Amino acid sequence: MTDFGERDPSPAICRGVILGIAPDVRLLDISHEVAKFAILDGALLLWAALPYLPVGVHVAVVDPGVGTSRLPIAIRVARGDVLVGPDNGLLLPAAERLGGALAAYVLENRDYQLPAVSASFHGRDVFSPAGAHLALGAPLEAFGPALDPASLVRLDLPAPQPLPDALATSVIYVDTFGNVKLAGERHDLEAVLGPLAPGDPLRVAAPAREPSLDDDRLGLRLVEPAVLTWQLTFGAVPSGEPLLYEDSYGRLCLAVHQGDAATRLGLRTGDRLTIRRGSAR
Amino acid sequence: MTDFGERDPSPAICRGVILGIAPDVRLLDISHEVAKFAILDGALLLWAALPYLPVGVHVAVVDPGVGTSRLPIAIRVARGDVLVGPDNGLLLPAAERLGGALAAYVLENRDYQLPAVSASFHGRDVFSPAGAHLALGAPLEAFGPALDPASLVRLDLPAPQPLPDALATSVIYVDTFGNVKLAGERHDLEAVLGPLAPGDPLRVAAPAREPSLDDDRLGLRLVEPAVLTWQLTFGAVPSGEPLLYEDSYGRLCLAVHQGDAATRLGLRTGDRLTIRRGSAR
Amino acid sequence: MTDFGERDPSPAICRGVILGIAPDVRLLDISHEVAKFAILDGALLLWAALPYLPVGVHVAVVDPGVGTSRLPIAIRVARGDVLVGPDNGLLLPAAERLGGALAAYVLENRDYQLPAVSASFHGRDVFSPAGAHLALGAPLEAFGPALDPASLVRLDLPAPQPLPDALATSVIYVDTFGNVKLAGERHDLEAVLGPLAPGDPLRVAAPAREPSLDDDRLGLRLVEPAVLTWQLTFGAVPSGEPLLYEDSYGRLCLAVHQGDAATRLGLRTGDRLTIRRGSAR
Repeated sequence: MTDFGERDPSPAICRGVILGIAPDVRLLDISHEVAKFAILDGALLLWAALPYLPVGVHVAVVDPGVGTSRLPIAIRVARGDVLVGPDNGLLLPAAERLGGALAAYVLENRDYQLPAVSASFHGRDVFSPAGAHLALGAPLEAFGPALDPASLVRLDLPAPQPLPDALATSVIYVDTFGNVKLAGERHDLEAVLGPLAPGDPLRVAAPAREPSLDDDRLGLRLVEPAVLTWQLTFGAVPSGEPLLYEDSYGRLCLAVHQGDAATRLGLRTGDRLTIRRGSAR
Repeated sequence: MTDFGERDPSPAICRGVILGIAPDVRLLDISHEVAKFAILDGALLLWAALPYLPVGVHVAVVDPGVGTSRLPIAIRVARGDVLVGPDNGLLLPAAERLGGALAAYVLENRDYQLPAVSASFHGRDVFSPAGAHLALGAPLEAFGPALDPASLVRLDLPAPQPLPDALATSVIYVDTFGNVKLAGERHDLEAVLGPLAPGDPLRVAAPAREPSLDDDRLGLRLVEPAVLTWQLTFGAVPSGEPLLYEDSYGRLCLAVHQGDAATRLGLRTGDRLTIRRGSAR
Repeated sequence: MTDFGERDPSPAICRGVILGIAPDVRLLDISHEVAKFAILDGALLLWAALPYLPVGVHVAVVDPGVGTSRLPIAIRVARGDVLVGPDNGLLLPAAERLGGALAAYVLENRDYQLPAVSASFHGRDVFSPAGAHLALGAPLEAFGPALDPASLVRLDLPAPQPLPDALATSVIYVDTFGNVKLAGERHDLEAVLGPLAPGDPLRVAAPAREPSLDDDRLGLRLVEPAVLTWQLTFGAVPSGEPLLYEDSYGRLCLAVHQGDAATRLGLRTGDRLTIRRGSAR
C-alpha cells in the first residue's frame, strides 16, 4: 500500500524489486491511491484491510519524511504478520487491530536493501527489499537494532466525544461512493442517545466552515442540519434518502441510498459534526 | 469486477478473503471502476471481458440492492464457467455470451460465507467466499436452492431500431479514449442502409438534449449533426477526423482518429441518435 | 504497460489472453494509465520501470498507429529481456537502458496471434499472444522476418542544452505528486554552472506561454521566475518550499517539499525552461 499512484511506475517498480528478490512470493496490492502524504488516510486503509488479508508481510509507504531522520521499521504483531514501513504512525492502528506490536526493529542492515539507496524512494530501495527478504524467511532481528514498540511514533487518531445530548465526532474518511465514515462506533452513539432502533430520527449538524475553492470543484454544497434516520441497511430508505448506519467495519457512517452522501451533505475529511436525536428541525 | 474503486481497500479485501480460503487460486482483476451502482455498465464490461478470460469462477459485484431482498446467486454457463454475483441482471449478458445459463443457485449456505455477514459489503462476506470455495471445488448444488435460469432478473438492454432510412440507436458505453460504443452491430446498420464500403459518408444526429452542469464539467459541446465516414480502421482518416467503424467486439462505434469522440460529438452514455447515409448536410 | 485505462476491460482482456495461452506465467502490470496516444510518456515509464523488474518478456502498447502500416515488433536486449510492442519508438529508450537492442523481429506469424485479428485492438490480438508464446519459450526467430535494430523508429527525446550561463531544458514528465521531471541529469547542470552544493540558490524561468483552458482546469498559475535551492533531499527545506534535486532515477527534478511543484510553478509536460544560478531576483 502506498500513495504513489498507479499511473506512475513506482508501484510496479516495488512489485518488480520484490519479485526480483523473492520470485515465488504471492503479491497482493491494497491500494496505491492513498491521499498524497496523508499518513492518517493510509493508516485507516491499512486498519480496514489487514484483518481480511492472510497472515503475511505487509509493506506500506506513505512517507512525507523520506530522506529525513524518521526511521524505517518493521513490526511483528500478535497475529503473526510483519508490518514494514516508515515510523510515522502509519502502521500502528493496523498493528493494534492484529493483536498489537510484539517487537519492532530498525531497517538498517544494508544486506537487505538495494545496493544504492536514494534519498527519495525508500519504497523501492529499503521497504520493498525488506518485505521480500522477510517473506523469504530472513529473521527480523537481523535487520537492525530493536525498538521498544511503546516508543514508536503514534498518530493522534480522531475520537468521538460525548456531549450532554449529542455525540461530537468528525469525518475520518470519505469512500469512493461518497459514504462518510465517522470517528466512533454504534456503542459510542448509544452511550449518549440510548438504544437506537431502525427508523429513529437523528439530526446531524456541522459548524459553519468557510467555503473553499475545493468545495466548488468537488460540488459540495454546505447544508443546513440534516435530519435522517438510523438504519441497519441502505435499502430501508428510499433511493436518494440519507441515513446513518453501522458500516461493515463497525464504524458510524453517513450514507445516501444509491447516492453520494459527502456531496449531498457537504462534508469532507476532517469536518467536525454533532449527532443528536431529532425529528423535524 | 466491482464498482468499489481501487482507491478504497474493498477490492484488496475481496482478494484477501479469496486468498485466505483458496491460497493457490489464480486471481485476475477485470476492473473495479465500473460506474457506481450502474448495473448495465458492469454487465457490458463483463460481456466484453469474459470471452477472453480462461474458463473459471468470475465474481462480479455491482450491487445497489445490497441489504435488500435481491438474491445472491451463482450461475453455471455452457462454456464451463461459474458466475457469482447479485441477481440484478449484471451476470446474464455475459452468461449468454458464454453459451447461456445452464443452472443457477442461491448463495445461502452459511458454510460458504464469512462468519459475520454485514448488511452492506456482500462482496467481502458472501460473493468472494463463494468464489473461493467454488474455485476449491465446492459443488454448486451445495450453496443453496436451485433457481430456474429463466426466472433471473434481466436487464432491459438497449437495442437498435430500424427506421425507413436510418438506424436509431443509443450510446451504451464511452471508453477511456472517448470512443462511443453504440447499441447494435454492423449488420443492423447494413439492414437499413445496404452494404457499407470504407469511405461511405454517414450523418449522425442526436435529438436536442438539455445541456447539464455535467456537460460543462466534462467539456461536452452539443453539436450539429456530424458528417463522417464508415471505415475499417482509424488510420483511414486524418488525425482528428471522426469515423464510424466496427469495434474489436463487433459493435458499432463512433471514434475520432487519435482523439476523443465523446467530447468532440457531445455524446454520453444513454444518448439516443440516428445514423443515415449523407454527404454534406 | 498500456494507455488503455484500468477502468476499461482492455487490460484485463490482455491478462486473460496471456493466461489462456501461458497459464503459469507470472504477470506484473506496470501501468495502464499512460497518457492516451502519448508514445513519449509510455517510453519514459518503461525506461523508469524495466531496470527494476526481473528479466522477462515485457509487452507495451501505446499505439496511435494501430491499423496502419506501423510494424508490430519484438526486440531482444542485452540483459536478456524481450520487449514486445509497436515499432513507434515506445520500446527503444528502455531497450537501450537494458544494454541495447541485439535483434528485432516483425510479429507476423499467425500461429502466435489470436485467430481473428481486429483493426483496433492489437494489444489483445497480436501483442499479448506474442508475449505469452515468448514466455512459453517460442523462439523469437519464429515470429517473422528480422529487422535491423538500427532501422527501428526512434523518438526525438527531449535533451538539455547548455547556454553560456544556464541550462535550457524541458519538462518530460509530471508524476502524480506533481514532481516535475526535467530532461537532463545533474552532470548536465554542473557542466554549465559548476559543482552544486546543497543550498545553492538557483533561478528557474519559463518563457511566457499562452494560458489555456487546461491551465485553469488544472489549477496552474503561470508564475514569475522561481528562486529555489539545490538539495539532496526534500526534508532539507521547510514544508511547502520548492527545490531542485536529483530524483531517484538520476534525473533533474523540481519538487515542493510535501507539495505539488507542477501546480505551484505552473509547469506541465513539454514546457521549456532555463536554470541558472541566482539568489533573490
